[in-house]
Amino acid sequence: MVVKHYADITAEPVATPGAEKVSIRWLLGKDSPAPHFWLRLFEVRPGGHSPYHTHPSEHEIFVLEGSGRINAKGGGRPLQPGCFALVEPGEEHQFENTGAVPLKFLCLVPKE
Amino acid sequence: MVVKHYADITAEPVATPGAEKVSIRWLLGKDSPAPHFWLRLFEVRPGGHSPYHTHPSEHEIFVLEGSGRINAKGGGRPLQPGCFALVEPGEEHQFENTGAVPLKFLCLVPKE
Repeated sequence: MVVKHYADITAEPVATPGAEKVSIRWLLGKDSPAPHFWLRLFEVRPGGHSPYHTHPSEHEIFVLEGSGRINAKGGGRPLQPGCFALVEPGEEHQFENTGAVPLKFLCLVPKE
Repeated sequence: MVVKHYADITAEPVATPGAEKVSIRWLLGKDSPAPHFWLRLFEVRPGGHSPYHTHPSEHEIFVLEGSGRINAKGGGRPLQPGCFALVEPGEEHQFENTGAVPLKFLCLVPKE
């Protein structure tokens, strides 16, 4: 059993092209015994965003703090604390901070 | 793509033997297009707890609000907002509210 607080995990800058002012904490990743899916916490600082991109695996996300928008084909949809989303495999998407404080959200992906 | 707020999802009482004052919201479950794992939000009211039990699949949890304890072989470990846990397959566990306000946490499981 693993029991920790997310603040115990170092936030690493995301260097992917198209990512601006984004950091990631790998809460349960490849160095954990998680058998099927990985838990990460993203923080997007004001003015920042993730890349607008697509990939073959899904995201399940849950917004903890801040406000933002998920941009996708057909437009953007607002995000606030308590919002959750499923980005299905192959769907274009981008997470953008539209507020004045960090946007923090959990993002789960299947294990590679 | 699914984008919703957890308050849009009905909280259902958990009737499992051993569960006291627990409700569940299925945010992304069998009626969603989630391909690999399911996202649920549990609420344990003051004085309540989940069953002390075990099962072959893991839990990944993240605490949103309230305070509590995860009881397991060897004792209990405190939970507060921002805590996350991996309950590995086959590990005995119970979630207990030790505070005066609802304990809310996300709990993810592999798709059945």
